[in-house]
Amino acid sequence: MSKPSIAKGTRDFLPSEVIKRNYIFDHIKEVFKTYGYLPIETPAIELLQTLTGKYGDEGDKLLFKILNNGDYLAKANPEALANKDSNAMLSSISRRGLRYDLTVPLARYVSMHQNDIQFPFKRYAIQPVWRADRPQKGRYQEFYQCDADMVGSESLMYEAELLQILDTVYNRLGIDVIIKLNNRKILQGIAEVAGQSDSFIGITVAIDKLDKIGRDKVAEELINLGMDAQAADIILELIEIKEIETIATKLASSKMGMLGVAEMREVMDYMSDYTLNCKIEFDFTLARGLSYYTGCIIEVVADTTTYPDLRMGSISGGGRYADLTSMFGLKDMSGVGVSFGAERIYDVMEECNLFPESVTKSIDIFFVSFDDVSHRYAYKQVSALRAAGISADLYPEAAKMKKQMKYAHGTGAPYVAIIGSDEVDAGIIAVKEMNTGDQGNYSLTELIEKLTS
Amino acid sequence: MSKPSIAKGTRDFLPSEVIKRNYIFDHIKEVFKTYGYLPIETPAIELLQTLTGKYGDEGDKLLFKILNNGDYLAKANPEALANKDSNAMLSSISRRGLRYDLTVPLARYVSMHQNDIQFPFKRYAIQPVWRADRPQKGRYQEFYQCDADMVGSESLMYEAELLQILDTVYNRLGIDVIIKLNNRKILQGIAEVAGQSDSFIGITVAIDKLDKIGRDKVAEELINLGMDAQAADIILELIEIKEIETIATKLASSKMGMLGVAEMREVMDYMSDYTLNCKIEFDFTLARGLSYYTGCIIEVVADTTTYPDLRMGSISGGGRYADLTSMFGLKDMSGVGVSFGAERIYDVMEECNLFPESVTKSIDIFFVSFDDVSHRYAYKQVSALRAAGISADLYPEAAKMKKQMKYAHGTGAPYVAIIGSDEVDAGIIAVKEMNTGDQGNYSLTELIEKLTS
Repeated sequence: MSKPSIAKGTRDFLPSEVIKRNYIFDHIKEVFKTYGYLPIETPAIELLQTLTGKYGDEGDKLLFKILNNGDYLAKANPEALANKDSNAMLSSISRRGLRYDLTVPLARYVSMHQNDIQFPFKRYAIQPVWRADRPQKGRYQEFYQCDADMVGSESLMYEAELLQILDTVYNRLGIDVIIKLNNRKILQGIAEVAGQSDSFIGITVAIDKLDKIGRDKVAEELINLGMDAQAADIILELIEIKEIETIATKLASSKMGMLGVAEMREVMDYMSDYTLNCKIEFDFTLARGLSYYTGCIIEVVADTTTYPDLRMGSISGGGRYADLTSMFGLKDMSGVGVSFGAERIYDVMEECNLFPESVTKSIDIFFVSFDDVSHRYAYKQVSALRAAGISADLYPEAAKMKKQMKYAHGTGAPYVAIIGSDEVDAGIIAVKEMNTGDQGNYSLTELIEKLTS
Repeated sequence: MSKPSIAKGTRDFLPSEVIKRNYIFDHIKEVFKTYGYLPIETPAIELLQTLTGKYGDEGDKLLFKILNNGDYLAKANPEALANKDSNAMLSSISRRGLRYDLTVPLARYVSMHQNDIQFPFKRYAIQPVWRADRPQKGRYQEFYQCDADMVGSESLMYEAELLQILDTVYNRLGIDVIIKLNNRKILQGIAEVAGQSDSFIGITVAIDKLDKIGRDKVAEELINLGMDAQAADIILELIEIKEIETIATKLASSKMGMLGVAEMREVMDYMSDYTLNCKIEFDFTLARGLSYYTGCIIEVVADTTTYPDLRMGSISGGGRYADLTSMFGLKDMSGVGVSFGAERIYDVMEECNLFPESVTKSIDIFFVSFDDVSHRYAYKQVSALRAAGISADLYPEAAKMKKQMKYAHGTGAPYVAIIGSDEVDAGIIAVKEMNTGDQGNYSLTELIEKLTS
């Protein structure tokens, strides 16, 4: 006998949790489809040569590696074995690992299947990924990512499209959000105007911390990069601007900056006829993902005006990457994508009570019965309801009524049918509405009508 | 640059393949739900202590093992390391593996969460599993299983229910199938009547090969078990009986055999009012899974009367297991379940051309445009269509018409809208129906109506 236990950092999901998670996934999928994004699937297991070196040294450490099958030590690097050198031995005993995100597999997929697909290629994927992070509250080693990406066009139409997707999904899920927008080229313009183009990466690292460490500490970090207090001030003033037309006047002298402004204007122009449900804000302090994003940068947070007690980071993010697939030999493929943080969206919806009540209903009607004859009668009614597409169930035998009713309650069914010899004789179904306590008798046909209407 | 490649035995799925696979999964899920089965999910990564020893020695070898993170050699068994003994070293460098099936995780889940769920517990799961089998045509190392199981009741109602599920799913998918039914107790009765109860397992191993090696070879194998030719003949005659009432007369002297007959009768009695779409056959040669099945045994094959050219093994299977969870310490939990072989169902539907044409349609309408102004106009129409729930897309710029039309064809969209300055000026949308070549002009409202009706 094994004691039943589960690997650290992994989770089982109860039916109610799966149903709620699928509620989120289904809404996202529906919107992706409406926007012409197509589903692809890649395997959980990838060659380590595909994964290694794509996520930095830290990422390489967090990859789950699969031991080669069979007598894996037969081909183990003898020197590494003698020295007990785990790193040096790795490639000789493990050739495969688990997917770490959906982006590198997408790049591999697009490169491998470039002759089977047409560009611009619009795909979505909703699949689990694995990271050997130290498990902690809200952080798991196995979790879902939920991405839509376009590969193969520089058109800013796709930025607009993805913003509308974000807006539509959150509107349908009933979450008030703020979509924050920035552009790497505007950040480059800001660095240029402050005369600090050479410190661009350092500047973005510093301003990315603004939320956490505050203005004064960021100023300090900027000065530590080698600039004077005045230059740091210029940067801090510029990034706190909230209007695109204001930043346009400030960046007039920077060609790169004005390119960024022009991109932002074009994205907004595409959306000019679209009625937004949420707020879109320009936020030039937004400096995430700048190791890969080359244009637009997107981040979505729950609106704290609506949810003042909520403590939650970004729930979606995305951006434009000029060159996704050259790591696999396919050049000049500009892409843009967004990723929905499904796990965090779930937490927000739970905390703010945003799941509709109907989502937790697992079945429509549950049957209990008083004796064997009425049990068989009940089975036949249930069978007929199921054939009509109604989700119905019954207790497997005429057990004590209390036991059956307890089970019926446990299913969360809004209706319970109670069958005794009277119902069998009359050929009817006695139904109790659990919310109101109302009771009524129905023929099978009437009941099907009631439950499908 | 890495050469893009994929691990042996794994697959990428193109959008058209994912869409068809989801067509199968969605139909199965829908029926599972109607029958009151609830979704659960377990992690891909399980502790090896959960998996090892559950699938026989061969299964243990086929488990994918995950290397411990960090300096995994630090805690490696020194003796095994010195002897390069892969087996002896395993448990000291790998503590986790990948899910091998959905049944052992279900048993672990039910044991761990016995206080969070109610019994009878009816769950379905559709998740990938991993097996380090030698890859070959139609056999993959990563593939989906698709199971519905009930745990915690001995009621034969569930056998009936699962047979109806099989019947309903295959009917909705449009596949003609034969459901074959047997019962371990009937096989035991047959062995008893032949005076060969002691050779029961050997007998089932032999008759399981009837399809492959034929009657004479099976007779030989039976005789090799130590029985005489006459006993072998009795067994072979009995298993070839096709009627429950005939076997009932033959097994009258066997208490166990008659118990099996009674079970079969009760299952069929539950279904007496249900109108079957497919054929159900008693098949006492069916002897699969007898290391765990204790009652009913189910197997589904495509009906070769309908598909004479099809060469395909069973596409679903299942049965009753008296004791699923005691390996994890929870006693006396009888269960019954069925598993849909989704990969094979896909192959049958492809080979026999059973996917409806509409399933491959990825989007409803695609827009092409002649210049920048009409491109922007097109974007707005597409936006409005999407808001109305219609799947619409457009080329990202006013490229050459030939290029745009080629892309439009590639999407498989049944309608293509062609926008030039005339359409912009008149505020209309010119639409071509790709199948018929019919063209017409629509207002946005009219088009929404046409595409949603």
